[in-house]
Parts: sequence; structure tokens; C-alpha cells
Amino acid sequence: MIYLDYSATTKPSEEVLSSFYKASNMYFANPNSLHKLGIEAKRLIEASTKQIAKILNVKTNEIIYTSGSSESNNTAIKGIAYKYQNRGKHIITTRFEHSSIYGPLEFLEKYEGFKIDYVETDEYGIVKLDSLERLIRDDTILVTICSVNSEIGLRQPIEEIGEMLKKYPKVFFHVDMTQSIGKENISLENIDLASFSAHKIYGIKGIGCLIKKEKIDLEPLINGGKSTTPFRSGTPQLPLIVSLAKTIRLALTDVNEKKAEVSKLRNYLVNKLINFEKVVINSNDYCIPHILNISVLGIKPETLQHALEEYDIYVSTQTACSKENAKSEAVYNLTNNEEISKSSIRISISHFTTLNEIESFFNSFEKIYTKNI
Amino acid sequence: MIYLDYSATTKPSEEVLSSFYKASNMYFANPNSLHKLGIEAKRLIEASTKQIAKILNVKTNEIIYTSGSSESNNTAIKGIAYKYQNRGKHIITTRFEHSSIYGPLEFLEKYEGFKIDYVETDEYGIVKLDSLERLIRDDTILVTICSVNSEIGLRQPIEEIGEMLKKYPKVFFHVDMTQSIGKENISLENIDLASFSAHKIYGIKGIGCLIKKEKIDLEPLINGGKSTTPFRSGTPQLPLIVSLAKTIRLALTDVNEKKAEVSKLRNYLVNKLINFEKVVINSNDYCIPHILNISVLGIKPETLQHALEEYDIYVSTQTACSKENAKSEAVYNLTNNEEISKSSIRISISHFTTLNEIESFFNSFEKIYTKNI
Repeated sequence: MIYLDYSATTKPSEEVLSSFYKASNMYFANPNSLHKLGIEAKRLIEASTKQIAKILNVKTNEIIYTSGSSESNNTAIKGIAYKYQNRGKHIITTRFEHSSIYGPLEFLEKYEGFKIDYVETDEYGIVKLDSLERLIRDDTILVTICSVNSEIGLRQPIEEIGEMLKKYPKVFFHVDMTQSIGKENISLENIDLASFSAHKIYGIKGIGCLIKKEKIDLEPLINGGKSTTPFRSGTPQLPLIVSLAKTIRLALTDVNEKKAEVSKLRNYLVNKLINFEKVVINSNDYCIPHILNISVLGIKPETLQHALEEYDIYVSTQTACSKENAKSEAVYNLTNNEEISKSSIRISISHFTTLNEIESFFNSFEKIYTKNI
Repeated sequence: MIYLDYSATTKPSEEVLSSFYKASNMYFANPNSLHKLGIEAKRLIEASTKQIAKILNVKTNEIIYTSGSSESNNTAIKGIAYKYQNRGKHIITTRFEHSSIYGPLEFLEKYEGFKIDYVETDEYGIVKLDSLERLIRDDTILVTICSVNSEIGLRQPIEEIGEMLKKYPKVFFHVDMTQSIGKENISLENIDLASFSAHKIYGIKGIGCLIKKEKIDLEPLINGGKSTTPFRSGTPQLPLIVSLAKTIRLALTDVNEKKAEVSKLRNYLVNKLINFEKVVINSNDYCIPHILNISVLGIKPETLQHALEEYDIYVSTQTACSKENAKSEAVYNLTNNEEISKSSIRISISHFTTLNEIESFFNSFEKIYTKNI
């Protein structure tokens, strides 16, 4: 099997699963229980939190465990909106976000009278800083921008945006880091809130994080008890938390080295693919190497996907999170071209991918291309 | 170790963990991916959902996977509130609910101008049906009542309430079933929404369900993509879902037989404990046998808890979800007595508990009692 859909999800690593399994068996008590077993469980969560905080260079009380990025994004956006709506009801975002960003924004428009503005981007899809600054109003409370777009891999200049937003201390900055964590080193220094998920970085589906800086208040999305944090209620999912610490430690080791490996594979593949007349490379130089989005004009993406399956090769048609037969929104925003955006496929590469796999992919692709074009 | 804190959480069963582990390794793809691996993953979720639906006697599209009861309760309450607020902003509940019920209700009072009424209960804590009916107004959109209270085990007459509420088709009925599932057979027939969690029934922490009848609409708590359901976004947590199906199947087998076993143990213990002058039995005949709440006047619950720990016995002081040193709200509501409610401990029993364990508990308790009183 040649799996090239790493940006949709990853297989949890053996080490992660084993830490989960061990914690499930040895520390099953409720960390809120006041007896010895509960206290031991609580200490293990605290140790995991300390480990994660150290790796991410944040404080332990800045970590909120969630069920994943969708919950983190909703918690950040709705949580800031409810808590700070007296300051204003204006939020700025981009046209390159995930549905779990647009979802809560639409909710706030519909039910709470919020106004959402979309920042201008340049020909490469990159946020224009001056446009962003011009959009900021007295009633702007939040800017939410993904670090890396999931469909084409576009990396936004998060550090520059964060630096610029320092001039506006009443505007909070949320970054959906789901596609960048473990792939790009992005400093959390000038970011107020950041979301990510374990399952994109060889962790377990059903656990994620919202980083929320200490100075910021937040209305919980899930209200109730205040056991591990006042910002998210629910029995702490100890074994998942322990597995998350392991996931993050593994993912954030040698990020640059792993990225360099992925870059080599991507460049090798791009250099082969550019020779095909009907292939359009949608990902550009501002994209992370892990995501290579291409359109093959004249071959339906489903046809290409299923033909590749015959060779036991798995790529994505659009992101896994969008609707069947729809066009890729990100590609459309970038190209303004229906045909290209409707025929896009995403090849997503990991540091686990080998040159052999990329060669096999290419050979199969070439056969399918020749047969269908 | 003698664990008598089953109502706080349970140890996941080997079968459940092994189903999780197997699914994590064999079906790691994103169920939203349109390639073969994604479709296989999606089919496995559908099979799990079908299994759960059959056991609970609901439709497959009535199952919404969540991260647990706290999320389910928040989704039900906020979800109905936002969707049906045009009909009215009045909700009825009891004084015996979990914090994840009160949390979203307080949120709605604070931010959305909802009015919450608390139904009268009789001397045993049981909801008075006539009082409930009198509270229903033209603008009532929801009644939310837990099937079993977590602190004293009080079982509410859910079936009778559901039957009565049939007269008011515009009033939805939500039941927090966290403490009753697998312990009591409660028909979902006249219930519109029901919440529960895997970790109370030998499942994994971080997965739960909200049952929502087909006819009802709901605003999602977590907005975004609409992959497995339009009512909760996020990458489907496949291995946790598979483990949940196993958890429910095991928990809902032989419920009455298991309950009869637990009843025997509880009655044995109660018959011993009533002979102690300073022991007050807070749980009454309307409580499920799995929860036995007692107060030992003159011994602080922490002292008793820690003394029992010396014998490797684990009970709960209040529920695991409330604050340290607080009184038990449920016991206070029942007794109106500060001393009793501040000295309560909860002994929670499982069908895995043996008579030997109960005897050991009693012997240790007797020694501690004699020494401290």
C-alpha cells in the first residue's frame, strides 16, 4: 500500500497506541476523584500537560484538551465571541480556512449578529498584511487564520501577522495549526489561540488541543464542571491525554530534518509531473512540501483516484472534509478556474514516505495518464 | 484493591480495548476520504452505528457521536435552545442534575435571556408530575431531567414523565442517562434526546453519544463539516466509535440479572450499616442499587476516605465532578441538613463487585468507625 493521504489522517504510531493502552489499564480512575487512585491519575495528566507545555513553549494552564481541531476551532471562535462581544462583533478571516472555522463564524452571523470580513490575498493566496490592517475596526475582536491550508498546503505568514497584530492588543489572533504542527516550526509567541489535532500527526482520533494564552478569557463551548480547566468540562480523557503527549513529542522532534526529506520527495515528483501537458500544479512555492495539489485536465479526479487504487495507491480528491463532486474551494480561490478546481487531487506526503513509493506513484500515474489523455 | 467508585468511572474492559486497538491499526483512514481505505472506514462506522441503533432501538440517523456526556448534554441543551428559541426561551429541569446540565442552562440564562424553572420533588427527591405539568408554559421548549442522579442514585420516573409530555408535542424531553445506561432498562420511546458516556460502562474516556430523534432539528455545538452527521462536525473518531459499539453491547446484556446481583450486595451492606448510630443512609428506595450514599456523622468524609485507602478501598466523597470540601448538593436537597450533606460518601457498586469485597469494606469500615466515633 502506498498511502499519500497523510493530510486527511495518519495511522497512530505503535508508541502512541502503547502509551494509550498502558494508561487505560494502569490509570483508569477519574482524575477528579479525591482518593489515591484519582490523585495518581490527576498527577499523570499534570505530567503530560507539563511535557506538552514545555515542547510548545507555553504555560501548563494555557493548554485546553479537546476532542480535536473542530472542537478547538469552535471553542476559540465562539468562546472569544461570547466573552468579548461587548467590545464588538467583528471577526476577520481568510478564504482558505477549514469548515470548522467557517461553521462557527456562520453560527455567529446567524444567531449573534456578527460581521465577518475576508482578508485579501495575493496571486499566491498569501494574506496581504496591509489589507488585513485596513480591515481592523474598533469592534474587531478576533482574527482567525490557518497556518497551512489543508487543500493546497498554502502557508500563511503567521509570524508577520502576529507581529503586526501586536499593535492591536484588543484584537485576538487565533491560528488553526492543524496542518502545520509537526511540519513547520511556528512560534506561538504572538499567537493568542492555536488549535490542533492528534490524528494528523500519528496520534489517536478524538483528542486535540486548544492553546489559549493566560491573559485571555474564554466562554467554554462545553459548560459544566471545572476539573482540569475552567474552559472545557467533561471527565478528563486521561489515556488520550497521555497518548497526546507522546504524539506531540514524536511529532515535534526533528521537524526541519523531516521537512527536508519531504521536500526532496516533493521536488522529485514535481520535476516529473511538470512534463505532462495536462497537469497543472496548484500548490506553489508558498506551500509546505507535505501537500502537493495538482489538476489533471481531462481526467476526472474520481477516475484518477480509482485508477490509482488499482495500484494500491491512495490520494485525495479535494480534502476529506468537503462534499463529494464539489470543486476545491482553495484551488478555485487561487485560480478562479472552474475546470482546474474541479479536477484537483491532493497528494500528501509524510517523512515516512520513501522515494520508492514516490517512484511507484509516478509510474502508475504515467500509465493512467497515457491511457486516459 | 477494592474499587467502590464505579459511578465516577470504570476500567475499560479488555474486549473494548482490543476492539479499539484493532480498529486503530486496521482502519486508520479518514472515513471522509473517498478512496477505498476511506470507504472501508466509513462502512465500519456504519456497521457500528447499526449495531448501537439496534441495541438501543433507535434509528441509525438518531445517533450522534460526541466526546462524552458533557458534550452530549451541552449539544442537546444549546442545540435545542438555538434552533427553537423562536418558539420560546423557557426550560424546566430539576435540582438533581449534573454540572454539565446546569452549565449550558446558566450559559443560556446569561447570554440568551432564557428562563429556567426547577420542578418540585417529593420527600424522596422524586419529580412531582403535577408540578412539572404546572410549570409548562407556552414558551417552554425543553424539559431536561436525569434518569439517575450521580450522587445518591435517585431514579426519576422517566417513563411517566415522557408519557405525560406527549400531551405537549412542542416541549422536547432530554434525559441525561449517564448514570442509568447499563444499570436500568429505560425505554427511549417517549424521550426526544438522551445523553451518555462510554467510560461509566467499562468503555474508553473520550467517547459518548447523544441520541436525537429524527423529527427534531438541532443546531450543532461543534459547527463545520457534515461528514457522519450534520449535527456534529469533526473527523469521525472511528476506533473510539468501534469501541463504543462493543461497550454498549456488553453493558446492555443481562441488565436485570446484573442489577439483581448488585441489589443483593447493596442490601447486605445496608443491613449491616443501619446498626451504626452515626450512619445516615441517604440513598432511598427510589435509588438504583449501584449507588449507596451514606453520611457518617462525626467523621469527616476525607478522613473516612483516606482511612479506607489504608485498606486499599476506594470510595467517593461527593461526586468526582464537584468541588473539594463542598457539600453534596443532592444530599442537601434531599435532607436540607448541612451536617449530613457535608459528611456524605458515595459507595458505588458494580456487577463486578463480589460479596467478599463488600465484606472487606464493611470490616474496614467498622474498624474505622469504632476508632473515630
